[in-house]
Amino acid sequence: MVDAFKILETSMLICTGYGATSPSADLAPLTFNRRDVGQNDVEIEILYCGVCHSDIHFARDEWHFTQYPAVPGHEIVGKVKSAGSGVSKYKVGDLVGVGCMVNSCRTCSACQEGLEQYCADGLTGQTYGGTDKVINEPSKGGYSDRIVVDENFVLRMPENLDPAAAAPLLCAGITTYSPLRHWGAGPGKKVGIIGLGGLGHMGLKLAHAMGAQTALFTTSASKVEDAKKLGADVVILSKDEAQMAEHAETFDLIIDTVSASHDLAPYFGLLKRDATMVQVGAPEHPLPISVFPLLMRRRNFAGSMIGGIKETQEMLDFCGEHGITADVEMIPIQKINEAYERMLKSDVKYRFCIDMKSLQAEAA
Amino acid sequence: MVDAFKILETSMLICTGYGATSPSADLAPLTFNRRDVGQNDVEIEILYCGVCHSDIHFARDEWHFTQYPAVPGHEIVGKVKSAGSGVSKYKVGDLVGVGCMVNSCRTCSACQEGLEQYCADGLTGQTYGGTDKVINEPSKGGYSDRIVVDENFVLRMPENLDPAAAAPLLCAGITTYSPLRHWGAGPGKKVGIIGLGGLGHMGLKLAHAMGAQTALFTTSASKVEDAKKLGADVVILSKDEAQMAEHAETFDLIIDTVSASHDLAPYFGLLKRDATMVQVGAPEHPLPISVFPLLMRRRNFAGSMIGGIKETQEMLDFCGEHGITADVEMIPIQKINEAYERMLKSDVKYRFCIDMKSLQAEAA
Repeated sequence: MVDAFKILETSMLICTGYGATSPSADLAPLTFNRRDVGQNDVEIEILYCGVCHSDIHFARDEWHFTQYPAVPGHEIVGKVKSAGSGVSKYKVGDLVGVGCMVNSCRTCSACQEGLEQYCADGLTGQTYGGTDKVINEPSKGGYSDRIVVDENFVLRMPENLDPAAAAPLLCAGITTYSPLRHWGAGPGKKVGIIGLGGLGHMGLKLAHAMGAQTALFTTSASKVEDAKKLGADVVILSKDEAQMAEHAETFDLIIDTVSASHDLAPYFGLLKRDATMVQVGAPEHPLPISVFPLLMRRRNFAGSMIGGIKETQEMLDFCGEHGITADVEMIPIQKINEAYERMLKSDVKYRFCIDMKSLQAEAA
Repeated sequence: MVDAFKILETSMLICTGYGATSPSADLAPLTFNRRDVGQNDVEIEILYCGVCHSDIHFARDEWHFTQYPAVPGHEIVGKVKSAGSGVSKYKVGDLVGVGCMVNSCRTCSACQEGLEQYCADGLTGQTYGGTDKVINEPSKGGYSDRIVVDENFVLRMPENLDPAAAAPLLCAGITTYSPLRHWGAGPGKKVGIIGLGGLGHMGLKLAHAMGAQTALFTTSASKVEDAKKLGADVVILSKDEAQMAEHAETFDLIIDTVSASHDLAPYFGLLKRDATMVQVGAPEHPLPISVFPLLMRRRNFAGSMIGGIKETQEMLDFCGEHGITADVEMIPIQKINEAYERMLKSDVKYRFCIDMKSLQAEAA
């Protein structure tokens, strides 16, 4: 009997992209293998790929799990180029998206409930430091010409949205949408977003579109005007104690998008009784949490990570209905190292997006 | 028109008890005033008073709000000695209890929902460092011969329980009962209790009686046998990584009763997706919380503080039905300073309770 995996191993796609060969190396052009298109796979020609702050952590092995060469990128929008014989959801030419997650065990309770991001076996981050189980090679992300993904982990992009500006919805969008929905953002609720970056600006737009009263917390007075344009009903300078005190015990939900180490103590007092602060940024070091503000009002501190496939599609459809995309600055792939340096200085409004046509210059 | 408050001011009860006159002073006999019995008040002859760890913090001003002389004690059981003309719930001779809280604003949403412990104006801890608003004097707790309390903040003690052993239900009991109920402990749920002290031993008994599968976490192998007798289905040595790993991602709820600084990181991984760790101990310094275990399974970290009056009565009735009391070591009031020293060494199984008859020796 022929072993299907072995056949696949002998038949691989040679792809081009940009990646890092060591933690200290700049990203540079490279070629690499992906598995060939299997029965349930779609091959996607990548048109755009958003640049997430975590791409930098991944490229530089700051989370200590990167395998090299490392190709980042998990905010992928493209067109279906080919499809396996068993694919039923997509056809050649469809506009589709791929996020952080390209597989999961599909049998645990989380997967059964459509919460594959919390898969008991761990999600497969093919675009994010996982291993492609078919060819048993470190998976490669979206800074690339094409990608092969199981149709069950492919999303349909709304046709009415600018596909480049929609790419960041696949990570920044769902990362804020999921906790907003899970903790009940909507009319009659007051929702705060801490930090105005890639995640924060999506959080503002989404919370506003859901009908919540929306506040942005920022340390920077220069962001006030922008935040209001993006959907903030109020902007609160978090270092201004008087402004913070005005909002004491009024928030139903606060989403913290900041991944740098920072003091959460001033925010807990702004939550109502039984309300929740949700961390979606991922600070490297533990955060010091004072227990008293939690005790005094039975408040919660929680974490949330992207969203399941079903919820990600729901988020994309919601964004289609409300005309919501990210604010992006387009770059050619050749500018990626410069973009990383600018991101580290928060010098981007609010997400870089790579125009993958630029990759053809490498091939020429 | 006569001002009722002024009449009350001129008519005060002279009480005896034990208290501290400075942060460094031992507790010693003293006399002090309470307000006279108002229209809605009951006067209670105190029979027993439990000794909570927080009494030490209060007596020694470790939370920086103590006013001296300070009379601790908020696990009070006694008999109604007299009642105001408007009192309808209690009559002379009734066996009653008083906990941490003797008043609240009664109008905010928390009070309206029976969650007076989270009163927007702050609960009145007449037994716990508050101010008696009638006579405008620092309130005095239960290490005393009698107390005057509004009938709405008085609890009815089940007649079938040993009243001395039931006294700690008023604080240690409700502090663990309330989060167990709020976060759904019961049949089919696996509940962990961290720490086997005054709070922990009540948490074990209550979670077990609610029908949950109950685990105790302890650093001390010597507590295993006791914990099982108290209701633990399993005892987990928290420093034993293999034992901890066996229980990874299996807990629906963990209640942390430890108020000393400690590392919570090993416990978060034991929670299921969407499950909650609740802090009921009150560590003085912020706890370092690593965000990743929260993100990876959408886990929660929360706080909870005693319970409302309605829920406290429900807890007492539940304990009456199930025959649940604290394990107490009786002491005369004269041994209180010694008891504090022993508590600081965790040398008590599991709560000291003062037999208030001993106070009569002072008066003699």
